[in-house]
Amino acid sequence: MAEPPRSHYCVDVPLRWSDMDAYGHINNVQFLRLLEDARVIGFQEWFGRDRSPLDEGVLVARHEIEYLAPLEFRLQPIKVDMWATKIGGAGFDLAYEVHDVARSAGEPPTLYARAETTLALYNFRTTSPRRMAPEERAVLEQHAGDPVTFRWRRR
Amino acid sequence: MAEPPRSHYCVDVPLRWSDMDAYGHINNVQFLRLLEDARVIGFQEWFGRDRSPLDEGVLVARHEIEYLAPLEFRLQPIKVDMWATKIGGAGFDLAYEVHDVARSAGEPPTLYARAETTLALYNFRTTSPRRMAPEERAVLEQHAGDPVTFRWRRR
Amino acid sequence: MAEPPRSHYCVDVPLRWSDMDAYGHINNVQFLRLLEDARVIGFQEWFGRDRSPLDEGVLVARHEIEYLAPLEFRLQPIKVDMWATKIGGAGFDLAYEVHDVARSAGEPPTLYARAETTLALYNFRTTSPRRMAPEERAVLEQHAGDPVTFRWRRR
Amino acid sequence: MAEPPRSHYCVDVPLRWSDMDAYGHINNVQFLRLLEDARVIGFQEWFGRDRSPLDEGVLVARHEIEYLAPLEFRLQPIKVDMWATKIGGAGFDLAYEVHDVARSAGEPPTLYARAETTLALYNFRTTSPRRMAPEERAVLEQHAGDPVTFRWRRR
Repeated sequence: MAEPPRSHYCVDVPLRWSDMDAYGHINNVQFLRLLEDARVIGFQEWFGRDRSPLDEGVLVARHEIEYLAPLEFRLQPIKVDMWATKIGGAGFDLAYEVHDVARSAGEPPTLYARAETTLALYNFRTTSPRRMAPEERAVLEQHAGDPVTFRWRRR
Repeated sequence: MAEPPRSHYCVDVPLRWSDMDAYGHINNVQFLRLLEDARVIGFQEWFGRDRSPLDEGVLVARHEIEYLAPLEFRLQPIKVDMWATKIGGAGFDLAYEVHDVARSAGEPPTLYARAETTLALYNFRTTSPRRMAPEERAVLEQHAGDPVTFRWRRR
Repeated sequence: MAEPPRSHYCVDVPLRWSDMDAYGHINNVQFLRLLEDARVIGFQEWFGRDRSPLDEGVLVARHEIEYLAPLEFRLQPIKVDMWATKIGGAGFDLAYEVHDVARSAGEPPTLYARAETTLALYNFRTTSPRRMAPEERAVLEQHAGDPVTFRWRRR
Repeated sequence: MAEPPRSHYCVDVPLRWSDMDAYGHINNVQFLRLLEDARVIGFQEWFGRDRSPLDEGVLVARHEIEYLAPLEFRLQPIKVDMWATKIGGAGFDLAYEVHDVARSAGEPPTLYARAETTLALYNFRTTSPRRMAPEERAVLEQHAGDPVTFRWRRR
């Protein structure tokens, strides 16, 4: 886990005009919605349609997010890099970077937010926590990377 | 700031049926919406209609939230305790606990979430950060309290 | 049904700051959300907690809405008058007027929208339409009124 | 206008998992959101980035929608056919059909909703209604079609 990220999986997430608030920017709460969309899209690609933990069940236990630049609505989807940062026995952490494509060669893309979600595995049929299956672990390890370095935690 | 919270200001925040997701619980993203509502309601009460930092301008720089119990829709508003935990020169942190009223005497109310938001003061007219006014500081200090102790930060 | 409305039931519906869009007004789509909230609140009062058609099951089959004045966010709930306009064997129509309280005596309240929803009774357990129960009909007839006169149907 | 639709412009509109409500279907209010998305996407393609009436300004004056089949979340965008049905001096009507792609040859695609929106041209700078420009009319006439036949208007 301490080694550099092997594969930052990038998900295209469409914005909606209504994600903007009265200030004319994508609202901070809607960023969490974009992360939800990234999980829904990304997990199906990671785990396949029938083995998605989202269907089997995960619960969101925690979010942390830092907003780095204002984002305005555009028709082109935003990019969300997504990788696993903690893979435990009954859950995992997911890190994200919400960014743009680079506008021109040599210029870095704008980074709008960095975030982390803690997910607890859950069995909706038995309404109880569940252990991570070996296949789930194998998939997550293919997408493992460094933890997010948050700048604005004040203590 | 290290002394025990003096006044945990409590805001009544109405839920919407549509805050529930397909799992039948208030969706994790909508909790952040409830916190936004708590700020809008609470700040007007704290600062008064004409001096609200929300109008003058604050930007959300950061959220951290832990989900502790599933919340189902009910017609009665949810309770959001809200207090200031860091009062700096150009921003402040806001802590929240989302909870119920106690169902019966001697029983503790259910705690659904604890959260913290970092707010940066902003001048929307000049589109630039701004310093905290003495009157703003005075109001926030009346609502100052202990920082949130997050349990699930994994490092 | 042709007789004048007997009782225009009035529901207080809280707005959210986030109901505003980038134009700074309550978004036209969110008006439908306010009508949903009005139904959820009003039906519990009309039918009681355990007999609400909303739990038993109704499906929205149709909406029609006209927007008459821009609505801005305010902390005070908006008023939604709500009455039944067609009470059939397997569904009913619901009419609404979204308005303000009168600002001063003798002045009419601002009317923001008029709307109508067709609801089909549904049994979610058997996933099939269902007939209206006599008790449901009795409740609806207490809240019956004139159909909405839409001005902007262009044909 | 009485002649058969010349070009039913088809817009791909992505769904969100959160468009589902507690019943597990795309919520009826969110259908209106999908129509908003269809307008935003479609108008940019019809009018071009700089001449979009959405920027110049249109106000939604009216919606009418009929729900024909339950829609469940899927990753693939939904199809929204969109055409102009009334082109007046200061506004126009827009008709929509929300549907699927056909699953197999010879089988008709599922139709989820038909709807119509009345749009009033508006100048946000002067905050006043405005006349339709000849270029706007020319574009709309390329996308003109028959009015929607609503089945469930009960009178």
